[in-house]
Amino acid sequence: MYVYADNAATTKMRQCALEAYAETAERFFGNPSSLHSTGQAAQEQLSACRAAVAETLHCLPKEIYFTSGGSEADNQAIASAAAAGARKGKKRLISTAIEHHAVLHSLERQKKAGFEVDLLPVGTDGILELSTLEKALGDDVALVSVMTANNEIGTLQPVREIGALCKARGVLFHTDAVQAVGHLPVDVGELSCDYLALSAHKFGGPKGVGVLYARTGAPLTPLIEGGAQERGKRAGTEDLPAIAAMTAALREAVAQMPIVTPRVSALRDRLIRGLSTIPHSALNGDPVRRLAGNVSFCFEGIEGESLLLLLDEKGVCASSGSACTSGSLDPSHVLLAIGRVHDVAHGSLRLTLGDHATEEEIDYIIEAVKEVVGRLRNMSPVWRDLQEGKRSFIL
Amino acid sequence: MYVYADNAATTKMRQCALEAYAETAERFFGNPSSLHSTGQAAQEQLSACRAAVAETLHCLPKEIYFTSGGSEADNQAIASAAAAGARKGKKRLISTAIEHHAVLHSLERQKKAGFEVDLLPVGTDGILELSTLEKALGDDVALVSVMTANNEIGTLQPVREIGALCKARGVLFHTDAVQAVGHLPVDVGELSCDYLALSAHKFGGPKGVGVLYARTGAPLTPLIEGGAQERGKRAGTEDLPAIAAMTAALREAVAQMPIVTPRVSALRDRLIRGLSTIPHSALNGDPVRRLAGNVSFCFEGIEGESLLLLLDEKGVCASSGSACTSGSLDPSHVLLAIGRVHDVAHGSLRLTLGDHATEEEIDYIIEAVKEVVGRLRNMSPVWRDLQEGKRSFIL
Repeated sequence: MYVYADNAATTKMRQCALEAYAETAERFFGNPSSLHSTGQAAQEQLSACRAAVAETLHCLPKEIYFTSGGSEADNQAIASAAAAGARKGKKRLISTAIEHHAVLHSLERQKKAGFEVDLLPVGTDGILELSTLEKALGDDVALVSVMTANNEIGTLQPVREIGALCKARGVLFHTDAVQAVGHLPVDVGELSCDYLALSAHKFGGPKGVGVLYARTGAPLTPLIEGGAQERGKRAGTEDLPAIAAMTAALREAVAQMPIVTPRVSALRDRLIRGLSTIPHSALNGDPVRRLAGNVSFCFEGIEGESLLLLLDEKGVCASSGSACTSGSLDPSHVLLAIGRVHDVAHGSLRLTLGDHATEEEIDYIIEAVKEVVGRLRNMSPVWRDLQEGKRSFIL
Repeated sequence: MYVYADNAATTKMRQCALEAYAETAERFFGNPSSLHSTGQAAQEQLSACRAAVAETLHCLPKEIYFTSGGSEADNQAIASAAAAGARKGKKRLISTAIEHHAVLHSLERQKKAGFEVDLLPVGTDGILELSTLEKALGDDVALVSVMTANNEIGTLQPVREIGALCKARGVLFHTDAVQAVGHLPVDVGELSCDYLALSAHKFGGPKGVGVLYARTGAPLTPLIEGGAQERGKRAGTEDLPAIAAMTAALREAVAQMPIVTPRVSALRDRLIRGLSTIPHSALNGDPVRRLAGNVSFCFEGIEGESLLLLLDEKGVCASSGSACTSGSLDPSHVLLAIGRVHDVAHGSLRLTLGDHATEEEIDYIIEAVKEVVGRLRNMSPVWRDLQEGKRSFIL
């Protein structure tokens, strides 16, 4: 059996997206900046896509900026808010310890440029307490950046409340919604956010394309300079085929959400129940306030990378955490932030279900994980020490 | 008749590129950073594309960085060299007056950050004199950036000689080869360049993808930060379908070049001869040292935008200059730099031929331009003044 359970890393393109790509590349190949009819036809398609994306996010079309993906959108939001903050003497940036590296590394760059960066702690459930944020806020804060849903442990942050708090204090608020858009309803008005980043390939759209939402009036400086595309805020010929494909994928994802979310959530819970029967294991993140398709576990006494490789032999594609850092030997910063000790954090497994996951697949995954965890523990010196009482169990 | 003669703005995707896109999106949809077999299969494809692109440019695969396009690549090259220069106290950047805005605006940003920027003049043929560059060089120069071929007037710069001069003086050299790659042989060794930018959609590849070549050892800092993709120099999940499509297009373009270049050059010269019979007109740029598909003219007494719109009615898609600035009322900085006065520069027309252009199309364009220029001149008060001797002809 082949089960692709790494949909947080990337999804396969939806059929509607592939078709939109091919059709747009064929029929609307012109440069949207060209004045002739071939260019203007492309321009009209671009406007239609912008309007459709804006509709799903509940914002104005002119607040949508097409980018090359979520990372670029996160980078631009943070650089823009920091530049505006610096002009006003606001030299502090607030975020959380569990953000994606596109946010964390952007903050790190601002730190080198003289900003103070506060990475707020989250609870063992992976959720930021509002009171923690409230205490950290001040007149010197240029931006608060909190992700809508975590890419490793799937926890949903109280972004509405965070947005309302920031708005009340007059502080700019950015949310990295890369894992959320297409999977749960996202309304920028409800979030009271000034910026939002999304990435198409996380919901069956193409890779290499995303969106930066920037509220009218929110400071915005280009990251890529050149032509006057995207109202002067993002240079480079618009990738219309990919934008059209993203739009088609987003519309389908949003339309199917009422059916997909409860179905996938039920499968997720079935998977969580199944894996919970493995002794000395623990679910990472909140059991309820989490993405419909996300299951993240730690298993004591084993090493996540070996787990992945053996699961792969059984046809199960999974991840230990974020795909973006999979070459790294350091344990996940997210797992450490929710209080997992190094050894336990190393034994992590992330399974992220697609819209078409089945019960049969879930049961296959459960059996595969049980068998592989058992096999690895039998070979593990750490597990022997745990069994013999030379070390104490943590989970 | 429909004639798309705006291939410098963008090209239609080659069939081989569309097929590579669809096949890759279907078969190699994994995230190349994922450890499982689906991810690793994508990683292998990515490596194969990198090797193939490196082969066409005659460099090492590890010197190829995939970007979202030419603008991003130009931005990153300039920002990287400037950052390295600043660390060594080299605070001067040299370029030409006729670069693309992706270069000019990047330089403008560095100017605001304290750099001195020298935009060297070009001759009336649009070509930079080596002696001009030689005089400008000095120990304080962080980067020389000169485009391989101009996007408006198609002139080819003496980039080999420029590269050799920069190398001899120990100055970093970047070339924006967006209009050149896929249209003429480009060998980074022969160019002695440290950086080179290319864009896939200029040679039948997809939009939204390009390459930054950076020589081993050349300073390189990320523009987009986050995951460790592209050896830590460009974050964001790699757009493998687009990269595979670009690779297929590039290979085809390079393979067909020996046949396409002389054929298209002959059509270009036929078009130039035909348009030269229009009185008070002039070819922009050098007649010989120019891109095979580029024809750029100025017609006295008319306004370029009207010319485009009437040509469009006749089915001819053309441009007045660069598509990226087509909304602007200012005359082209390139035409001004080669000595065209404002009024003349306003009456410009760029026709850029595709690989499949035909004699029939060329003859149709010539007749269409003749008729439209005649019609516009009949309505033009400037033309009447010229005819009545109230103004003097320039061309």
